[in-house]
Amino acid sequence: MDYVYGPGKNHLFVPGPVNIPEPVLRAMNRNNEDYRSPAIPAMTKTLLQDVKKIFKTTTGTPFLIPTTGTGAWESALTNTLSPGDRTVSFLIGQFSLLWIDQQQRLNFNVDVVESEWGQGANLDILAEKLAADHSHTIKAICIVHNETATGVTNNLATVRKLLDHYRHPALLLVDGVSSICALDFRMDEWGVDVALTGSQKALSLPTGLGIVCASPKALEASKSAKSVRVFFDWNDYLKFYKLGTFWPYTPSIQLLYGLRAALDLIFEEGLDSVIARHTRMGKATRLAVEAWGLKNCTQKEEWYSDTVTAVLVPPYIDSAEIVKRAWKRYNMSLGLGLNKVAGKVFRIGHLGNLNELQLLGCLAGVEMILKDVGYPVKLGSGVAAACAYLQNNIPMIPSRI
Amino acid sequence: MDYVYGPGKNHLFVPGPVNIPEPVLRAMNRNNEDYRSPAIPAMTKTLLQDVKKIFKTTTGTPFLIPTTGTGAWESALTNTLSPGDRTVSFLIGQFSLLWIDQQQRLNFNVDVVESEWGQGANLDILAEKLAADHSHTIKAICIVHNETATGVTNNLATVRKLLDHYRHPALLLVDGVSSICALDFRMDEWGVDVALTGSQKALSLPTGLGIVCASPKALEASKSAKSVRVFFDWNDYLKFYKLGTFWPYTPSIQLLYGLRAALDLIFEEGLDSVIARHTRMGKATRLAVEAWGLKNCTQKEEWYSDTVTAVLVPPYIDSAEIVKRAWKRYNMSLGLGLNKVAGKVFRIGHLGNLNELQLLGCLAGVEMILKDVGYPVKLGSGVAAACAYLQNNIPMIPSRI
Amino acid sequence: MDYVYGPGKNHLFVPGPVNIPEPVLRAMNRNNEDYRSPAIPAMTKTLLQDVKKIFKTTTGTPFLIPTTGTGAWESALTNTLSPGDRTVSFLIGQFSLLWIDQQQRLNFNVDVVESEWGQGANLDILAEKLAADHSHTIKAICIVHNETATGVTNNLATVRKLLDHYRHPALLLVDGVSSICALDFRMDEWGVDVALTGSQKALSLPTGLGIVCASPKALEASKSAKSVRVFFDWNDYLKFYKLGTFWPYTPSIQLLYGLRAALDLIFEEGLDSVIARHTRMGKATRLAVEAWGLKNCTQKEEWYSDTVTAVLVPPYIDSAEIVKRAWKRYNMSLGLGLNKVAGKVFRIGHLGNLNELQLLGCLAGVEMILKDVGYPVKLGSGVAAACAYLQNNIPMIPSRI
Amino acid sequence: MDYVYGPGKNHLFVPGPVNIPEPVLRAMNRNNEDYRSPAIPAMTKTLLQDVKKIFKTTTGTPFLIPTTGTGAWESALTNTLSPGDRTVSFLIGQFSLLWIDQQQRLNFNVDVVESEWGQGANLDILAEKLAADHSHTIKAICIVHNETATGVTNNLATVRKLLDHYRHPALLLVDGVSSICALDFRMDEWGVDVALTGSQKALSLPTGLGIVCASPKALEASKSAKSVRVFFDWNDYLKFYKLGTFWPYTPSIQLLYGLRAALDLIFEEGLDSVIARHTRMGKATRLAVEAWGLKNCTQKEEWYSDTVTAVLVPPYIDSAEIVKRAWKRYNMSLGLGLNKVAGKVFRIGHLGNLNELQLLGCLAGVEMILKDVGYPVKLGSGVAAACAYLQNNIPMIPSRI
Repeated sequence: MDYVYGPGKNHLFVPGPVNIPEPVLRAMNRNNEDYRSPAIPAMTKTLLQDVKKIFKTTTGTPFLIPTTGTGAWESALTNTLSPGDRTVSFLIGQFSLLWIDQQQRLNFNVDVVESEWGQGANLDILAEKLAADHSHTIKAICIVHNETATGVTNNLATVRKLLDHYRHPALLLVDGVSSICALDFRMDEWGVDVALTGSQKALSLPTGLGIVCASPKALEASKSAKSVRVFFDWNDYLKFYKLGTFWPYTPSIQLLYGLRAALDLIFEEGLDSVIARHTRMGKATRLAVEAWGLKNCTQKEEWYSDTVTAVLVPPYIDSAEIVKRAWKRYNMSLGLGLNKVAGKVFRIGHLGNLNELQLLGCLAGVEMILKDVGYPVKLGSGVAAACAYLQNNIPMIPSRI
Repeated sequence: MDYVYGPGKNHLFVPGPVNIPEPVLRAMNRNNEDYRSPAIPAMTKTLLQDVKKIFKTTTGTPFLIPTTGTGAWESALTNTLSPGDRTVSFLIGQFSLLWIDQQQRLNFNVDVVESEWGQGANLDILAEKLAADHSHTIKAICIVHNETATGVTNNLATVRKLLDHYRHPALLLVDGVSSICALDFRMDEWGVDVALTGSQKALSLPTGLGIVCASPKALEASKSAKSVRVFFDWNDYLKFYKLGTFWPYTPSIQLLYGLRAALDLIFEEGLDSVIARHTRMGKATRLAVEAWGLKNCTQKEEWYSDTVTAVLVPPYIDSAEIVKRAWKRYNMSLGLGLNKVAGKVFRIGHLGNLNELQLLGCLAGVEMILKDVGYPVKLGSGVAAACAYLQNNIPMIPSRI
Repeated sequence: MDYVYGPGKNHLFVPGPVNIPEPVLRAMNRNNEDYRSPAIPAMTKTLLQDVKKIFKTTTGTPFLIPTTGTGAWESALTNTLSPGDRTVSFLIGQFSLLWIDQQQRLNFNVDVVESEWGQGANLDILAEKLAADHSHTIKAICIVHNETATGVTNNLATVRKLLDHYRHPALLLVDGVSSICALDFRMDEWGVDVALTGSQKALSLPTGLGIVCASPKALEASKSAKSVRVFFDWNDYLKFYKLGTFWPYTPSIQLLYGLRAALDLIFEEGLDSVIARHTRMGKATRLAVEAWGLKNCTQKEEWYSDTVTAVLVPPYIDSAEIVKRAWKRYNMSLGLGLNKVAGKVFRIGHLGNLNELQLLGCLAGVEMILKDVGYPVKLGSGVAAACAYLQNNIPMIPSRI
Repeated sequence: MDYVYGPGKNHLFVPGPVNIPEPVLRAMNRNNEDYRSPAIPAMTKTLLQDVKKIFKTTTGTPFLIPTTGTGAWESALTNTLSPGDRTVSFLIGQFSLLWIDQQQRLNFNVDVVESEWGQGANLDILAEKLAADHSHTIKAICIVHNETATGVTNNLATVRKLLDHYRHPALLLVDGVSSICALDFRMDEWGVDVALTGSQKALSLPTGLGIVCASPKALEASKSAKSVRVFFDWNDYLKFYKLGTFWPYTPSIQLLYGLRAALDLIFEEGLDSVIARHTRMGKATRLAVEAWGLKNCTQKEEWYSDTVTAVLVPPYIDSAEIVKRAWKRYNMSLGLGLNKVAGKVFRIGHLGNLNELQLLGCLAGVEMILKDVGYPVKLGSGVAAACAYLQNNIPMIPSRI
């Protein structure tokens, strides 16, 4: 039997891996194929063209790497930087922390700009650093677009403005793991040099593809970057792109077909509609949290994330107990609080192929769990607040009108 | 692309076909096989043994017929009765109506006992008929355990008591299509002679198996029943049961493996736990309806169904519009009002492999739709009422403790 | 674990159920849906239009009945005939025998024209009967296009010619279970009144759809046919066709999507190419049988079947042992000899979504089994003969040029 | 429509990715899950225990890395060696070449021992180098167990004997990508320090898992190895092993369940039976090649590979044309000749979940293709030779007796 049996569907509300839509599951339900036949390169070609759309880039070069987000990070860094290079990196939660740790272990000289967890990247300090860096020792700004641990979205447009203002040539490397395909992201407009995501996030696939997109400037940098790399080396990919066979090593056939289906779903809904749906989900969740009388871990509205909400619990409650009960009693998966906010927050992931009624079922479940653990929630209050907003804002499903 | 695209999962709350659990989908994801190999008979043998448990019978003989509920009805009738035989049949909604129509077209002499839609079978009249039938002209009592159109559950124990009281030998034929595996059903204890269900109901499989179970008395009747039948003839099955090859014609391999997985899931949860879960679902739904200030189509508590709730809407609302909006705006499938109650009720099916948070998502959706169509519902009220009950009654998931 | 575990793929060469292609498996890998939503009727409409093409009819009316071939037979008979009606029916093997048995049990007056097993329908006798039947007492000619038990294909064009020659108004009812989508079949041109097949045959789906197509004359006959029927009644379907909801009872959603995919595959290959592929398969198999020094159960070339070959074994060999060893040693499923030819023939089904190399693997396996059971076969001889023919005749795959 | 449509099954005989058995496809047909729930660690624990069996180790520590074979190589090297370290590495074909290239790019000092393509590793030279290396400058012997490009299996037992003979402490790093689960491999007995494979090879899964197993000595080496690594760092895994949560980053849920199913299949068949099956496949293929009058690229019997056979074609034939026709006419995928043997060899992969009749279909296909391209093959000759051997050697399927 399955390890996770429980009646009904598992309510998957961790901020990744997320629910896989049926058309994607179907597309992946297939035998292996020879990836050197004409079929796979033909499909890969269209995938590479289409995947650029989710980054909103026309000039970028995408790489579909058989790895995770962690590997995508490594790909972004090692292809563009050399050991000893100075990076400015923002520590605002567990995932930015892990990326910084990686940057340090890869021997970059990381200039860490720390914020309290729950706050966004401190861009004032960035401004100062850029202003002071006349000799352009800063080689890259590394920033997590959406910090999954605290539900904080950073303002990339402002980062770009600062770089432009100070005419600073640093590369802009962006972790879009929990933002791309869900939040407004504009690679070309914001001058992002490397953007990356993982297949199991808003694309709603299984884990296994690190999707990295490099600007022409990043590609240029890769020619002189001295970081040691083989598996993650873009040049191996570029060599096979030229040959038209595309793959320096074996891809997952299933994930390629899955990606095809996932992109088709996103384009059918419309990328802007997908983003608008995430905006609704985020707003509805925050209204529920407010109605419950609880605080959002995210300290200011400007940083509110529309893909994950980290909810602060009162000191007398252990948030891990909430996650545990969700799993053991309600067949629901919520995100734990990590590191500094362990025990203090639980997280509701609301990204990927998801709709409002799924979220409302989750919110109703959270209310019951809050009561389970002794928090005096008014049952129905969060759902009521979310519904009041949603009922006015959910659009008709275009394909069904 | 798919015909039914919409973001997220479809919320399937029609009273059948119902949601298929993943382990069942997986079990059916397979190539065809030779059904005359030793493997299929070996599996069929265990299926026939195990399927008896969902009828709570040790003496019954089950048939897994490649058909629908309508075919299962025909199998029950033609194998036990002869043209001209008198049946007593209760007309309480659309499905009992269709069964009666079938009985008439199969040339039985149907003694129809009609109730207002929303009421259960009139057992007082049954008592009168049995009392008056000294010469035992009534050959069979045909009763729908749960009328799916109105959400009415009939009291089979009372029917048995009446038959016993009047020492009446009539066969008791029961449509358990929307009850078996969901409501308390006791074939042996209640002396049911033929019970039947369809795979797409509480068993949570695709459509395609009519599952019929015959008591020894029913089998005996089949020897002399003169109704013309070939495809539905139990004797063809019995012949192959004796041979140990089990199948008079080709079964669906996929549905057999699916049935195996479905039964395994039910036995792992425990049949009584499955039934208790349906009890919770029914109760929670009715509490929501009450909180909305709406009426249940079912007129008395004794008839309340725990698998489907038919909700009456105020006269100024067309219930079909509710179903339409559920589909077009919320990716939810609700049941229409049928025939006499068309436009007057919409139906929430809450049967099969389903859990409480799924139902709460549905109830939240219904609230928004009610508002959409101009009913002055208090958003969150139904969810609140349901949660207040559920939070006290949902058990821990045993496999996760 | 699975009941049928063996290393590698099961080589499925029974004449049905046959191998399901991956795109069809994928299409069926899905949750249930509300069949009363707008999506299912929309798809059903296109299915009904497209399924006519496999019958080569523009005037016929198709029915997609949730049943098996046996049920499709019953549908054809009960909708067009009345008890006591005279049918002429040809007994040439196990499946024609079973259909005749059904006709008799449905109370038709069956005029059986028997041939030795291995021969086709005796059309000389048909001619005599038609010539003698001035008063048109014959209401229907019932003929199996391809007798699966003996690998005999009957000549339907000649049947039509005889009917026309004698200006006989009898209905022409054709069992196309193992022919349609594989052999040349022309419903309109041959004036077939009811043609039928099952989903698990050349359409390469799971079992569960009886696909029946009725000519205008058959539909007209259904208005006055007095056979008792409910589940199989075309009129119930026609009523729902008019309503545009299409289904008198619940269809299998999965089989509908599967049928869509199966038809798409057939149309992409081209129906005539599909038939030509079956012609190659039949020819190649017969060449192998000849090379082995064995006899075809089919006695004359004019009756050779391109979907199944029944191979006669020498008297000192039990053909059941061949089938048993195929299963137990080679993970291959062959067809048993049935009834009169039990122990005397084994059958190789070569229909459905199958290619030449699959068949050659089967033939190589049969050679080894023949040796296993003591037949002095020259290993490689059958494969050599088949290859010599195939290498000259297999076309390039159009989509890959 | 699918990119690779052709009638029937694709005959997949590249040496990886290989055919996925149905139970594995079924196991992977599932939604994502929270990998931090108790279920995934519980399953991971059993996977890590069981995966050791395919390496035949009790003391090794396995890592299930979301990557390909190329990444597994990088994991083996960077965790055990420091930049500048001397490795002895054998260049005998395309994959050993690529690994050597990786070693060089990772800044090791690679002592390349080259053989003619078609020969095994030159162990005489290894002996010389070990004998001369009194100061133990050689830190690692890097050897490909089975060179997939030429069908050459190296003798690892001899490598171990040499190391022992010279009491040399060098690490023994083995690429078992196309050997593990197919060829005799004994990690503990042969003193292998790091062994690795990829999921898409003999394990018969999709691509996506690099499975690496480290001896205690290798783990010890990892503590001081100075190669820069983050994504591939074993220490991150070991940290999470201790925590009992197992994953430093997100695994593919689907591949974990798939691996569970794949291991279950292997253990049910028995690992030694699996290896014996591969021995039969290799032998049968070579007998066919001999019968065709063609030469094996592998120059001596001692190096014959039982997972892949590289077949030399006469100079007047371009082997790429054979692969092309296999794909375009016969729906078969064969392996191209790579690099030095491009145009000169085509490759038949016969590894993974595969049986003899599948192989015979492939061999029959190759015969027809050889004829297509003008080679005077005697049709049926290879199949005959293979059958003569197989018919005497295939065991009964234990589960079916």
